[in-house]
Order: sequence, then C-alpha cells, then structure tokens
Amino acid sequence: MPQALIFDVFGTCVDWRSSIARAVAKALPGLDAVAFADAWRAEYQPAMERVRSGGRGYVPLDDLHLENLHRVAARFGVSAPDHLATAWERLDPWPDVPPGLATLHRTHILAPCSNGSIAMMARLARHAALPWDCILGAEIARDYKPKPQVYLASCTALRLPPEHVMMVAAHNDDLAAARAAGLGTAFVARPTEHGPGQTSDLHPSADWDIVAPDFEALAARLQADTNRPGP
Amino acid sequence: MPQALIFDVFGTCVDWRSSIARAVAKALPGLDAVAFADAWRAEYQPAMERVRSGGRGYVPLDDLHLENLHRVAARFGVSAPDHLATAWERLDPWPDVPPGLATLHRTHILAPCSNGSIAMMARLARHAALPWDCILGAEIARDYKPKPQVYLASCTALRLPPEHVMMVAAHNDDLAAARAAGLGTAFVARPTEHGPGQTSDLHPSADWDIVAPDFEALAARLQADTNRPGP
Repeated sequence: MPQALIFDVFGTCVDWRSSIARAVAKALPGLDAVAFADAWRAEYQPAMERVRSGGRGYVPLDDLHLENLHRVAARFGVSAPDHLATAWERLDPWPDVPPGLATLHRTHILAPCSNGSIAMMARLARHAALPWDCILGAEIARDYKPKPQVYLASCTALRLPPEHVMMVAAHNDDLAAARAAGLGTAFVARPTEHGPGQTSDLHPSADWDIVAPDFEALAARLQADTNRPGP
Repeated sequence: MPQALIFDVFGTCVDWRSSIARAVAKALPGLDAVAFADAWRAEYQPAMERVRSGGRGYVPLDDLHLENLHRVAARFGVSAPDHLATAWERLDPWPDVPPGLATLHRTHILAPCSNGSIAMMARLARHAALPWDCILGAEIARDYKPKPQVYLASCTALRLPPEHVMMVAAHNDDLAAARAAGLGTAFVARPTEHGPGQTSDLHPSADWDIVAPDFEALAARLQADTNRPGP
C-alpha cells in the first residue's frame, strides 16, 4: 500500500491546452490560439532535453516557458508580453481532480512530481485547488523527468522508500520511468489532453499497478485495497 | 507589501515543548518528561552548528533529532524507541495559528522557512492544519538557519525578490538574519515557548516591520496595510 501519491501535473491534473489557448486568445487576439498553445507546448521537451543531456545546467521551467514563448511568438509573427508565460500558473483542473484529491488527501500524503518549479506548482495549486502537502519533482532534483533522479529525490524528500510511493500519471513513459526507479504506478487516461484527435496515451501500455478512469475512481480503488484483509 | 510570508515553525507556529513532553511521557513513563523535552531541544543548536560550520554535510533534522534522542536518553539512563523521534511531526499549533493562517492564506503565499525537513514539515502540516503552499527552508538550501542562504534560497524558490517576502518568527535572531538577507520581518512573541520561566524573546529587540501579539492580529495588520492608500 502506498503511503504517498505523487502526481504528474500537466495533462494529468490540469487541462493545459484549453487553459493556455484561452490565455493566448486574450493576450494575442486574432491568432489561432489553439495552434499557438500546441506550438508552445511542442518546445517543452526539446528545452528540457538540453538540461537532461547536460548541455545546460538546471533552469526552472518558468524560464524555459518564457524563452519558448518568444520563440513561438516570432514564428507566428507577433510579439508576446512576458506575463503571458505565467499562464502556466493558472491552468484549470480536470473536473474529477479537486474532489478526487480531496478524498485521497484524507489517507495519503499528496505531492506533485512535475517538471514545473516550486513557484509554478505552488501558484497553480492555489488556482486549481490542489491540496498538496509539499512540492516535489524537478526543482528538488535539479533535473527533469523522466530522469530517474527526479522520482528518487522525491521519495528521499518524503523519507519513504520508492515502493511506498505511487506515481500517478496520464503518460505511459512517465510511469515506465517511475516503475524503473522502484515506485508504484497508477494510470489515469486523459484522452483529450491534446484535443479531439489525440492518438497517444489513450490506453495503458503496461500492467500498471492501478488503471483508473479518473481521480475519484483512483481514490475508491485505493480505499478498497486498504480495506481488503491482508494475506 | 509582501507577496509571500515565510514562517519559523518550532516555537512560532507550534508549541514543541508541551507536545514533546506529552510524547515523552507516553513513550518513557516515569521520567521528568518536561526536563527530557528541554534536554532534547538543547541538543538542537549544537547538532545544526556542525552542519553550518562545514564540519558535516547537510543531514536532515529528522536524523539529528534521532541521534540527539539517543544521546539524551542515555543521559537519563533509559533506552528510547526510535519512533519517538517522529513526535516532532505531531506538535500542536498555538491556538491562534490555524485561524490566522487561514485568513493570511486568502491573500498571501504561505510557506515554512524552518530548519525542519520537507518530510517533517509536510507531516506536521497535516497534524497541525497548517495551509502551506509549499515547503521551503533548510532542505531547499541544504544548510541551516540563520545562514543567509536558507532565507535567500527560499525567496529564489518562490521566484520573488527578498523585499517581497516577509519572515515571521518568535525569535529575534531569526528576524535579524532575515533582515540582513533583505526580507521583511514580523515578530510574534511566544512568551511560554520555553515554559513559565522564559526570559528570552519576550519582546522585539529591533524595529521589525510588524510586531503583532498573535497570527490573527498579524493578518489584520497586513490586511489594513493592503487597504491603505499608497503615497
């Protein structure tokens, strides 16, 4: 039984695409805001890869998002205000997330294990009502997922062995990395994270410890496991 | 006006002495539990000083408390169970703290800037209903207060300049170090932290930005400052 649950955030807890598109539409009217959001997000992995590969020291995601914003804006032929980068602090949760986390919080320590910074995660938690007990993830490890150190540093900060910590994510590659580091795994599909035409991560790609349709079902499943008599 | 408030915890937010004495009385009946609590706490600064001075790498306070527990138990002629060290995760808040923090949380980012670890602070927050947005302090900086790096690393993690962050503490030396690092300062006296005979930190020793009798008064004072028309 896990004592703590740690969560991927972008895509798993919050709907970044709709929220970013809405902020882009407001700050840069007249653009294809959804295309801009997708282009901005597409810069995310390459920017982190430079850090993961050692080509650059740890830079918080806030700064990577700001650099990427200006690169994408130039491609769209516009000049973006710096403050638009803080839109990543105001992403709306999927509807099941606040009630599901509230239930899970009664029995488990909860924390993000995200590539977002402590500042970004703290402000996002206030916006989206995410009841984290602490902020773990990239900034604790000073590296980016799926590097094993990010999962392991998060367990160390909780003073729990990896087998007592469960990673919750909508992305199979995140769970594969967490499992390789020794953590439990729970998959919650988010089939519209990338819009109506999404083809990736629609289904679990491995026998994750738990597969649940949403956070409320995840809470019910963990509750049932807790109440089951031991061997 | 501060955007974030960061807090000393042991003594300022929670009554460690009564809580530890109660745990000692339960785990080690027949001892002078208050004297044991005071002796255990007296080992706290010397243990951290070895880290601050570079005589030892960063060791989380959980481990220092455990080492100190066994040293003090030997002096009292008893053998203490390891689990007693986790009593520092179950300290009761001063009565004004939960309502005061709930009010402050509406308008300010709140975080501990304590010498406690992330794990200790996260578990203590669950016990004492402390609505932290994130956990800052010693483990972020991998050093102990009053080293300036602990205050500065906490501001960096919030992505705020020190002048937009206010340190709240019942200890004048903590506030002096925070002010030297550029932070705002608020003093809340806790005249019974060390019991009825306390002689230290009964009064502010400098012109701290705010001096308040408790956290509810601190919240009211910050609210009044926010509503005052600017120059």
